[in-house]
Amino acid sequence: MAVYTRVSAEVLADFLTEFDVGAPLSFKGIAEGVENSNYLLETTTGRYILTLYEKRVNPDDLPYFLALMDHVAAEGVRAARPIKSHSGDILHSLAGRPAALIEFLPGLSVEHPTPRHGAAAGETLATFHRATDSFSMRRANDLGLPGWQKLAEVCAASADTVQAGLGKVIADELAFQTTLDVSTLPFGTCHLDLFPDNVLFARGESPGVIDFYFAADDAYAYDLGVMVGSWSFASGTFQPDIAAAVIAGYERMRRLSDAEKAAFPALCRGSALRFLLTRLYDWLNPVEGAVVTPKDPLAYLRILDDFRARNHFEDYAGGA
Amino acid sequence: MAVYTRVSAEVLADFLTEFDVGAPLSFKGIAEGVENSNYLLETTTGRYILTLYEKRVNPDDLPYFLALMDHVAAEGVRAARPIKSHSGDILHSLAGRPAALIEFLPGLSVEHPTPRHGAAAGETLATFHRATDSFSMRRANDLGLPGWQKLAEVCAASADTVQAGLGKVIADELAFQTTLDVSTLPFGTCHLDLFPDNVLFARGESPGVIDFYFAADDAYAYDLGVMVGSWSFASGTFQPDIAAAVIAGYERMRRLSDAEKAAFPALCRGSALRFLLTRLYDWLNPVEGAVVTPKDPLAYLRILDDFRARNHFEDYAGGA
Repeated sequence: MAVYTRVSAEVLADFLTEFDVGAPLSFKGIAEGVENSNYLLETTTGRYILTLYEKRVNPDDLPYFLALMDHVAAEGVRAARPIKSHSGDILHSLAGRPAALIEFLPGLSVEHPTPRHGAAAGETLATFHRATDSFSMRRANDLGLPGWQKLAEVCAASADTVQAGLGKVIADELAFQTTLDVSTLPFGTCHLDLFPDNVLFARGESPGVIDFYFAADDAYAYDLGVMVGSWSFASGTFQPDIAAAVIAGYERMRRLSDAEKAAFPALCRGSALRFLLTRLYDWLNPVEGAVVTPKDPLAYLRILDDFRARNHFEDYAGGA
Repeated sequence: MAVYTRVSAEVLADFLTEFDVGAPLSFKGIAEGVENSNYLLETTTGRYILTLYEKRVNPDDLPYFLALMDHVAAEGVRAARPIKSHSGDILHSLAGRPAALIEFLPGLSVEHPTPRHGAAAGETLATFHRATDSFSMRRANDLGLPGWQKLAEVCAASADTVQAGLGKVIADELAFQTTLDVSTLPFGTCHLDLFPDNVLFARGESPGVIDFYFAADDAYAYDLGVMVGSWSFASGTFQPDIAAAVIAGYERMRRLSDAEKAAFPALCRGSALRFLLTRLYDWLNPVEGAVVTPKDPLAYLRILDDFRARNHFEDYAGGA
């Protein structure tokens, strides 16, 4: 939760002259997004999110993220579209930060999803994957295997201060992941962070997708693995009915190939390792003056431990 | 800015069954209010603020604050009204905290007010004072002279660590304030925190008043002094046109008596001392894990220094 950069009403009014969105009626900093400053803006024409990108986001990636939001929204995913200024731009500058004005997406995220929520969200991820078939921009996933290796190296010396034996768990899993060849799996633009808090449910609407700032190219089944981990463990322990519902929902829109099913358990373990490593890094390197408490890396150690005992696709999709 | 207590969509839905406000459409933590957790809630019937009161607010005071909001709104001040539940209550409990559901008040606060903003806000304060004539609940101001003396005692030993000589400035001003007799001045329910960020401007509407959580009985002219200090120094140095506009706006709705005018410079100094002391206390006693940066106490030292050279009502109201 955060507003790192303050925007006054006067600065806002000046910024809005670049857009055709009417006059501001209310403007509130919102406590969402660990990476950026977000404001909820209401004008005479509607509601918008104003996002100022803080230093954890690479400004060079912003045209990709914003174009992706625009693209999937045009292709039928319920996602917020960036608003174009008079000059046709979607990326702007405000208070010394890169900034974007984005449609407001109604809906509520759920903290403890039911299988119905999971199925709808899984279907949404598949819709997202299909919608990006026609998206031409590319972005390598810097949080893939080479990124994990780098994080593991940096954290190696201190991992055991968080929990005894953690360093060995990471090294072992990394060694296992290094043996895999996922290059032949169906591959394309992935969301890579579709946790329950990034899916907004609204009655009578398909689930909305937010927070595109980890999106990159990767194996589609890995993206589904990220989802299965975060959704099935939303309440602290593995819920087989949620995992099965997410996968079944996904397959309603896009069937997994036999190769994807065979690789799925290893991809799930990889996704658990990815969040374990990034959380561990943030835990060991707290940002001076940060207003966000680092998330507990050990939650993902428990997920990885659990996933290492699931060797078959059916251990996820079977619902038991 | 803060959300200290997380409320899930599920907990929210359960809470809302107590009210006749429809089904939730969106729900965002907002980064406002240093004391409480605030959420902006949109339902099928409108928009609301859900506030969870954290430990800095005394729960015993909440019925007073909420009743005051309701009263002044009924008397024509643009203020948000608390929503009654089916059982007729305005104070509730949620996630282990006292909680209230309050109308959403549109509008934007200004960071650098113009004289026009100041005049409108001053008029609003006078309207507020008149509206509370008929308000029967009483609350002593715990941040009056006895409160200042207590804070000064607690901070005395460390004040000079913030700035050399600060302890003496405080002791001297406190000695001066102790000689005053304000008990014969017009007295009643005051807002006592009507800073620019607590006034919401909306086109075609009177200024909206928020944040009633310091309201208490005090001299009306002291409440005006609080305003004059925060509005005239909003841009860092004394702006005579803003001070004059606030006072002129106030007097459009409620004339100051000769006694109030004579006491005004001392009351302004007192209000500067009050914010200097509370900010100094918060500065010296940062709350473990707080997400709010304490405000700089020295900003109010500069205001106090300036005000000590203004000995006449005209030094504030004269516009020069």
